[in-house]
Amino acid sequence: MSHTVEIISVGTELLLGNIVNSDAQDLSRELSNLGLNVLYHSVVGDNPGRLKAAVALARDRADVLITTGGLGPTCDDLTKQTLTEAFGRQLVFHPECAEGIKRFFARMGREMTENNLQQAYLPEGCTVLDNAWGTAPGCAFEAGGTYVVMLPGPPRECLPMFRERAMPWLARLSEGRIRSRTLRVFGMGESAVESLLRDRMNGLTNPTLAPYAKEGEVELRITAKADTEAEADKLIAPIEAEVRALLGDLVYGADVSGLEQVVLEGARERGLTLGTAESCTGGLIAKRITDIPGSACAFKGGVVSYHCEIKAGVLGVSQALLDEKGAVCAEVAREMALGARKVLGCDLAVSVTGVAGPDPDERGNPVGLVFTALAAPDGVWVKRLNLASQAARRDRTRNLAANHALDMVRRWLSGLDPAGPA
Amino acid sequence: MSHTVEIISVGTELLLGNIVNSDAQDLSRELSNLGLNVLYHSVVGDNPGRLKAAVALARDRADVLITTGGLGPTCDDLTKQTLTEAFGRQLVFHPECAEGIKRFFARMGREMTENNLQQAYLPEGCTVLDNAWGTAPGCAFEAGGTYVVMLPGPPRECLPMFRERAMPWLARLSEGRIRSRTLRVFGMGESAVESLLRDRMNGLTNPTLAPYAKEGEVELRITAKADTEAEADKLIAPIEAEVRALLGDLVYGADVSGLEQVVLEGARERGLTLGTAESCTGGLIAKRITDIPGSACAFKGGVVSYHCEIKAGVLGVSQALLDEKGAVCAEVAREMALGARKVLGCDLAVSVTGVAGPDPDERGNPVGLVFTALAAPDGVWVKRLNLASQAARRDRTRNLAANHALDMVRRWLSGLDPAGPA
Repeated sequence: MSHTVEIISVGTELLLGNIVNSDAQDLSRELSNLGLNVLYHSVVGDNPGRLKAAVALARDRADVLITTGGLGPTCDDLTKQTLTEAFGRQLVFHPECAEGIKRFFARMGREMTENNLQQAYLPEGCTVLDNAWGTAPGCAFEAGGTYVVMLPGPPRECLPMFRERAMPWLARLSEGRIRSRTLRVFGMGESAVESLLRDRMNGLTNPTLAPYAKEGEVELRITAKADTEAEADKLIAPIEAEVRALLGDLVYGADVSGLEQVVLEGARERGLTLGTAESCTGGLIAKRITDIPGSACAFKGGVVSYHCEIKAGVLGVSQALLDEKGAVCAEVAREMALGARKVLGCDLAVSVTGVAGPDPDERGNPVGLVFTALAAPDGVWVKRLNLASQAARRDRTRNLAANHALDMVRRWLSGLDPAGPA
Repeated sequence: MSHTVEIISVGTELLLGNIVNSDAQDLSRELSNLGLNVLYHSVVGDNPGRLKAAVALARDRADVLITTGGLGPTCDDLTKQTLTEAFGRQLVFHPECAEGIKRFFARMGREMTENNLQQAYLPEGCTVLDNAWGTAPGCAFEAGGTYVVMLPGPPRECLPMFRERAMPWLARLSEGRIRSRTLRVFGMGESAVESLLRDRMNGLTNPTLAPYAKEGEVELRITAKADTEAEADKLIAPIEAEVRALLGDLVYGADVSGLEQVVLEGARERGLTLGTAESCTGGLIAKRITDIPGSACAFKGGVVSYHCEIKAGVLGVSQALLDEKGAVCAEVAREMALGARKVLGCDLAVSVTGVAGPDPDERGNPVGLVFTALAAPDGVWVKRLNLASQAARRDRTRNLAANHALDMVRRWLSGLDPAGPA
């Protein structure tokens, strides 16, 4: 029999719309990968009566019950009490948990208050899920055929707790394996990708192929189910080959975090260094590259030349050019990239200048007009972009501009025209 | 009697974790602002039986039922059929909807397929909610004391449909207004804040006061309900004053997006310019400041000096110092800030150098050892931080380091010791 899961998230802040339920998403993805069917998500507030009713309902309609939230030390954190009672157990003090909590505070150099020790009370006979990412431990137990797992609410605790602690406990329930592989596409819109692949997608059941629009790019996810991971991977491989044959070099990577990862790895493999010169993206490209651990292997640094003074003074863009044409033009993008390459002493420098909005610039250049340039040992390339239509929001305009800049580097590293089709 | 709401979101992609349920968050915030109490969120897949049961349950436990998703033209979009049946109605063809759908396709220059006209079938006697943001119209009706609203799933359709179409229809149910104000606290942990305020929080019912832990900071949300917004605000004011009296200058702002906003506005008001010199944060501080529209009012630019070569060559940090002590020390942070102030020609320059991880640096400095410095017209200040314990992850270490750097500027702008308690 296949196991069915309900995720109950507890917290009034979810019902007030103060936060989004990313825990439910994170856990659903992980559970699906384990081959467990998530049938329901429920959210209830910090209210014992309603939580109790939700638990009773969940026991009826699923056999694995996972809660998020309500394990903290504050008085509105009622999940533990309510579930322990609902399953006819008692809360008992777990001295080893208390030690763990004390150690956590000692490590942080912070003072522990008495209410933190509340968190060491857990259902009798449960498996304690030690929390290395915060103070509230989770727990897991089986009662009358229902498998119960309680996890803390903060997403940066919930997901690692699930992966490192709950998953080994749940592994016995898993039947078969689901594997997926995500191809990332830059330079073609979602509906164009979808029309190109529609017939193929409709003909597939295992694996499945599905497109997802991301900020300025498209993800194509191939998902297969089989008895083992190796068999699932074997189902995926021919579909990946087919998609790559159709989309060619618009597919920039598989199971990668983004263009920055592909660019960084490409540069490192070739022993080349990278630098940035950013105006409207304001440090976003450098930030995205340095999000990646070990980015110092290829990334030397960058200049955020938000004011023209910095473009001229630090990057050496011609003041006459800035006076005549303003900051948003192809020539300035070009000089920024060339200047950054020289000042930073790097092999490849990429630049962005444009209007991120919400308003046009003082010369009347429209929101979304962006120039990106790449300076490389063998030349310099500039792209003019109009991102207005795709990007109503400032953050989206900036992200798209960063993607285009990074894609120029990616294309150069792959031997393609850097100012190419994307 | 106060109205209670359940939001049912329909879509297998939510249960697979492919997308996050941002509709539920968006609608919850809007509904709370209308004074309606959202008591439950439910998510079910594209399965008529389970959706039918979820609707029956929702009718029992709430009197306003809002669905998102499942209105599209594809065969797994079953919300409309299932709800219409559940409330004993019939689907009838609405010719005016069909015209609207045709017009939408004409406007987009796209071809309409026959199944798009499926979307013109809606429950008899309903109020049609015209969709100007996509093709699937929504609808609303009252049946046996339950108020039903169906909205499309895509977030860029769902939220404007709610605001422009559903809200006028729901307005008759609204009683009173809920307002909230969020105070942001930097420099004290959640449980310390909570112990300090616990007695006060427990004594409050309207307004309520609740703490939320964010990345390296704490939010305190005061929420009040009253007949009008003005009256609700009047309930909030004395509690805000009390919290500010207790926490003093650890409260850095109210209803602000973050430290960067407070710093930017503070600098602008004083007519001062800002600059950054970043090593381990790699552009994050500049990125956060330039996330804010109009940041050019005070932010001049920054240098991302990821390699020591850039620290020496661009910022003028002494090579002898770098050779002797390495990049991660108080003196380098100090010289980076002073150098940035000079090179960028700004009034206030802030710098960060440290070990973001995941590994210690080549000199054996541990992950989380970070130095931040502020160079101002009247002096320079340096802070040594150990963020290791609070920050298991690279992104968190970087974000905390950026917060500390920004807080130094905030404190200087407020006349406090920049290297103060936080």
